Amino acid sequence: MSYLIDIAITPVGTGSTSVSSYVKVVLEVLRRRNLKYFVAPSMTTFEIDDLNSLGEIVKEIHDELVLKGAMRIVTLIKIDDRRDKENSIDHKLNAIK
Amino acid sequence: MSYLIDIAITPVGTGSTSVSSYVKVVLEVLRRRNLKYFVAPSMTTFEIDDLNSLGEIVKEIHDELVLKGAMRIVTLIKIDDRRDKENSIDHKLNAIK
Amino acid sequence: MSYLIDIAITPVGTGSTSVSSYVKVVLEVLRRRNLKYFVAPSMTTFEIDDLNSLGEIVKEIHDELVLKGAMRIVTLIKIDDRRDKENSIDHKLNAIK
Amino acid sequence: MSYLIDIAITPVGTGSTSVSSYVKVVLEVLRRRNLKYFVAPSMTTFEIDDLNSLGEIVKEIHDELVLKGAMRIVTLIKIDDRRDKENSIDHKLNAIK
Repeated sequence: MSYLIDIAITPVGTGSTSVSSYVKVVLEVLRRRNLKYFVAPSMTTFEIDDLNSLGEIVKEIHDELVLKGAMRIVTLIKIDDRRDKENSIDHKLNAIK
Repeated sequence: MSYLIDIAITPVGTGSTSVSSYVKVVLEVLRRRNLKYFVAPSMTTFEIDDLNSLGEIVKEIHDELVLKGAMRIVTLIKIDDRRDKENSIDHKLNAIK
Repeated sequence: MSYLIDIAITPVGTGSTSVSSYVKVVLEVLRRRNLKYFVAPSMTTFEIDDLNSLGEIVKEIHDELVLKGAMRIVTLIKIDDRRDKENSIDHKLNAIK
Repeated sequence: MSYLIDIAITPVGTGSTSVSSYVKVVLEVLRRRNLKYFVAPSMTTFEIDDLNSLGEIVKEIHDELVLKGAMRIVTLIKIDDRRDKENSIDHKLNAIK
């Protein structure tokens, strides 16, 4: 069973309107954890098998954002938890074609 | 100047766990309005030049979802309003490459 | 018929981690428009009768945030559009008591 | 250090437009875990000291929603992670008064 997670991070108080270097941190953490992900302009979708791991993933991302200089981070997460059927990035993209 | 809008609709009380036919309505409305959009697994990003038009776009989408049988709709929207630089789907995707 | 709107604004690149002065702008605009609202720690809920007006409300808020110095604003909105029954702040708070 | 979490659950495919009985599950889980929370019309804010625990809390909530009959759940979470100052429900409410 897979959970689909959308994540969008917003660093606050950095003094710059650019956020792309922070978004790259999200992608690096997902790659390092071998999670399948999909990059959209304003957020990233990834798959996890264990919903318990969500906090650790977000914590790892935030800790790295703090190292990059963000002292406050507002993160939006949307979870799609479907128990009756397969749920995956590919499945959802195919369904709306 | 462009505003980037993420939208994710969730019909409530339909009796079915499938939402793809409802998501297609979102894409149809965006196409009909000639708005540039990007499809992600769990939401859609589109560009608008006039933030005032956001309500009308959402209203058109919701009214069609109601015609399809949704009696309650929970919609998530994220707006990225950047006043100092160009903001577009292509620009954002390039920045995180 | 009322639509319930949750709104949370995040100014980006201000150089300060404090956002409360920006949040106050949201409340001022809602008061000026005589919209019923409910203040929560991290977002504000308000009622509108006309979904078409949503874009104008958000535009007014963002324009004032720009005057206060925000050059980029990321805004999260959640819309609860219920067509079968009354929908209001009071009704929803009572239902979960 | 506290993290402020906003959570809004939406059960999908239940056949009913009412969600209040599902929202009560969220509040029960937060109470059982002795987490401080604040109830708003369309979402709930709670405080956690350990961001790692976020996944377990959401998992516990979703598992109970499934027991109540929800076969698909779309959950929205907003995290406010502030590293430079105290962050709490009371602090944020006071700041915007």
